[in-house]
Amino acid sequence: MPSHPLITFASDFGTREYYVGAVKGAILSVNPEVRIVDTSHEIPSHDLLTAAFVLAGYYDTFPLRTIHLAVVDPEVGSNRRAIVVQTGRHIFLAPDNGLLSLIFEREEVSRVIAVEADHHYRKPVSPTFHGRDIFAPVAGWISKGLDISAFGPEITDYKKLTLPGAKPVGEGVLEGFVLHIDKFGNIVTSFSETSIAQLGGLQEGSSFNLNDREITRQVGCYAEGGDGELLFLLGSSGYYEIASNKKAASRILDARRGMKVALRLIADR
Amino acid sequence: MPSHPLITFASDFGTREYYVGAVKGAILSVNPEVRIVDTSHEIPSHDLLTAAFVLAGYYDTFPLRTIHLAVVDPEVGSNRRAIVVQTGRHIFLAPDNGLLSLIFEREEVSRVIAVEADHHYRKPVSPTFHGRDIFAPVAGWISKGLDISAFGPEITDYKKLTLPGAKPVGEGVLEGFVLHIDKFGNIVTSFSETSIAQLGGLQEGSSFNLNDREITRQVGCYAEGGDGELLFLLGSSGYYEIASNKKAASRILDARRGMKVALRLIADR
Amino acid sequence: MPSHPLITFASDFGTREYYVGAVKGAILSVNPEVRIVDTSHEIPSHDLLTAAFVLAGYYDTFPLRTIHLAVVDPEVGSNRRAIVVQTGRHIFLAPDNGLLSLIFEREEVSRVIAVEADHHYRKPVSPTFHGRDIFAPVAGWISKGLDISAFGPEITDYKKLTLPGAKPVGEGVLEGFVLHIDKFGNIVTSFSETSIAQLGGLQEGSSFNLNDREITRQVGCYAEGGDGELLFLLGSSGYYEIASNKKAASRILDARRGMKVALRLIADR
Repeated sequence: MPSHPLITFASDFGTREYYVGAVKGAILSVNPEVRIVDTSHEIPSHDLLTAAFVLAGYYDTFPLRTIHLAVVDPEVGSNRRAIVVQTGRHIFLAPDNGLLSLIFEREEVSRVIAVEADHHYRKPVSPTFHGRDIFAPVAGWISKGLDISAFGPEITDYKKLTLPGAKPVGEGVLEGFVLHIDKFGNIVTSFSETSIAQLGGLQEGSSFNLNDREITRQVGCYAEGGDGELLFLLGSSGYYEIASNKKAASRILDARRGMKVALRLIADR
Repeated sequence: MPSHPLITFASDFGTREYYVGAVKGAILSVNPEVRIVDTSHEIPSHDLLTAAFVLAGYYDTFPLRTIHLAVVDPEVGSNRRAIVVQTGRHIFLAPDNGLLSLIFEREEVSRVIAVEADHHYRKPVSPTFHGRDIFAPVAGWISKGLDISAFGPEITDYKKLTLPGAKPVGEGVLEGFVLHIDKFGNIVTSFSETSIAQLGGLQEGSSFNLNDREITRQVGCYAEGGDGELLFLLGSSGYYEIASNKKAASRILDARRGMKVALRLIADR
Repeated sequence: MPSHPLITFASDFGTREYYVGAVKGAILSVNPEVRIVDTSHEIPSHDLLTAAFVLAGYYDTFPLRTIHLAVVDPEVGSNRRAIVVQTGRHIFLAPDNGLLSLIFEREEVSRVIAVEADHHYRKPVSPTFHGRDIFAPVAGWISKGLDISAFGPEITDYKKLTLPGAKPVGEGVLEGFVLHIDKFGNIVTSFSETSIAQLGGLQEGSSFNLNDREITRQVGCYAEGGDGELLFLLGSSGYYEIASNKKAASRILDARRGMKVALRLIADR
C-alpha cells in the first residue's frame, strides 16, 4: 500500500478548460495528502464507450486499492445516479451510465453503492458539474478511508452497456465492430482474445474484413509489416487490432468507430 | 495545510513542447518536495481572457495557501512585470498583463509584489522563457516559505482588464459577449449570476439572443433539453451559458468568442 | 535529493488513450512512492526528432538523479533494444532508436545498459506495448535504487542520430533545417548557439532565409517585433528561431519541419 493514497482521474473535460483543475482542487480540499494521477482528459465529449475502453486499459496496472475516478457524464444534473464500486482489488467512482461496464465484466464486484449522502458534497452543488461538487469530494473522502457504505445504499440495478463483441454470422465468420481508433490510427476491433479463444482461436489463414478490404497478414508486432501493408495482431488491450507499420491503418481503410468488422476464423478452402 | 505545498500550473504552452517539463523541473530544482498540479496547458496561445477565465474557474476549489502559477505571456522579455499576489486565502504568480483580473475582482488582495530580485532567478535568464527562468524558481521559493516581500517592492498599479459584463442597452435589455466556448460547445456568456442578480435576476420569460437567434428555454441542467434544442442555464462557473443537450450549441449557433449576446430580462408583453 | 524519487515521462501516446495511464500504473505498482512528472504526451506519433528535441529542452532543469523516461517507439516488439543511460547527473530510459541522441551529444555518459533482465518485466509482455510492460517496471525498479547493471550488459554501440546542424555551403553561408515548429508557430532552426559561436557568431547584418524569404531583423524577444514582422532570435532551447510577435511565423512563411534554412553570417557588401 502506498503511504499516500492514489486517485486516477479520467474525463472528457479537455485540457483547455477549468474543469480538470476544479476537480483536482475539490479532491485536495478534502484530502490534501492524496496523489491524483491524470490518465486521460481528452476522451471525446460524452463518449461512454471510449471512456469504458480507456479505463479498462489502465486500471489493473495500478496498485491494489487505487481509487479510479472516471467522469464522462452526459446526463449530469438529471436523476442518473453516481456510484461507487468496490471490487476485490480497486474502488471505482463514476456516473451510473454504463461507463463501468467493462469493469463489471472483468472484475468480481463486492459492492455497488449509490451516492446519496449529500452532506459529503461540495456546496452549493452545480447541476452541471457533479465532477467538482459530488465526485471529487466523495473521492477525497474515500481516499481518507471512509467506508463506502457511508455514501448511500447498496444497489444491484446499476447500468451495464451490452457490448456485442463477436456475433456469429455464418460458418466460421464473426461480426464485430470498430471499438476504438487510437492516436496512431490503429483500429481496435471488438474481438477480444478471450472471446475468440472460446471459439477455438485464430487459425493459419484467418482474416479480417473491414470496408470491403481483406486483411490476411497476422503479425506479432507492427514493425513486422511492410510499408503501407495492412496487418492484424493482438493488441495490448486484449483486443485484436487492424494496423499498419508506422502508418495510420484507419486512414488507409477510411475506418470509423462503430463500423462493422468481419472475422473469418478459418480460411475458405 | 498539506504536508507538501501545492502549486497549480496553467499555461498556453501546449502538451507537445518542452515548455511544461522545463517549468516543472525548474520548480522542483528549487523545492523537490513541492507537488505540482497541472490544470490546463492548452489555453489558446497568448489568450489572456481565456487564461483569466480558466484560473477563475478552479483556484478557489484548492486548499488554503495553494500557490497558483499561470503563465500566458505574450510580452515575455519586454518590460512587463512579473507579479506575486497575496490574497487572504491563496498566492498567485503571473505576468502583470491582466491575467489575474478576475482574481482582483473576486478576492480581497492583501499585497501585490513586483518580482525584481534576480538572485532568485534561474541563470542565464532567457528573454523568451520567463516561465522557466523567473516564474518557476520564484514559485519554488514561495513554496519553501520565503515571504513574498523578498521578491521585490509592493505595487498598486498592476494591470486589470476591464471586462464589460453586462451593459444596459434598452429597457430590460443587456448586452454582453461570448466569454468562452468550452470543449462541449457550451457558450459561456459574460453575464454573471451576481451581475444579473443585482438587476433583479432572470424572470419567467427572460431570453437570450445570439446571432439573431432567440433562446427562450431556461433549464437547470443540459439533460432537460430536447434533441438539438437551444437552452440557457446558469453554468458551474457562475456565468449564464447557452447550450444544447449533448450537442455543441456553438456549432448550432455558429458562435465565436467575443460575439455580442443580448439578454432580455423581461419578456415583451 | 528529493525524499521521493522523480520520474519524468514523455511519449507520443496522446491524451485520449489508456497508454499514459497504463504506464503510470505499472511504474507505481513497482514503486508506489515515486512521483511521476508528465512532460509531454502529444509528441507526434513515431517522431524521434521531436522527442529528442523535447527531452533535450527540459531534462537539465530537473534535480540531480531524476529518472527521465521517454517512449517514442516505432519499432516496438522488434529486436530494437531498450537502454538505460547513466550520466553524471541523471538517468535516462528509452528505446535504443536515437531518441537520446541529443543527450549523448550534451552529457558525459557514464554507462549505457541494454535492458535484458526479463524477470523485472510486467508479465505477459505485450509485443506492442513495451512502455507498460518493460520501460515502466524498469523505471520503477531504478527509482527504488536498484543499480542499473542489474538490467543487463553494458553496451557501446547504442544508436545515435546524426543531426546535421549547420553545413557550410558558400562563403559565410550555412545550410540547416527546420528542427521544430512550436505551438506558437515559432520556427526552431537547427542552428544552435554553440555551433554558430564556433563560426564566429552572428554579426550585424546576418540574416536567415526560409522559403525564399529573407529575415533580417534580429531581436532579443518576440515582443520587439512589429505587427506581422518576421524576426530571428536565440530561443530558450539554445537554437536560433524565426518568429513573429504574437503571430505564427510558421503560417506567414508556410514553413514545415525539415525544410531547408540558410543562414548568411555576414551581410553582402
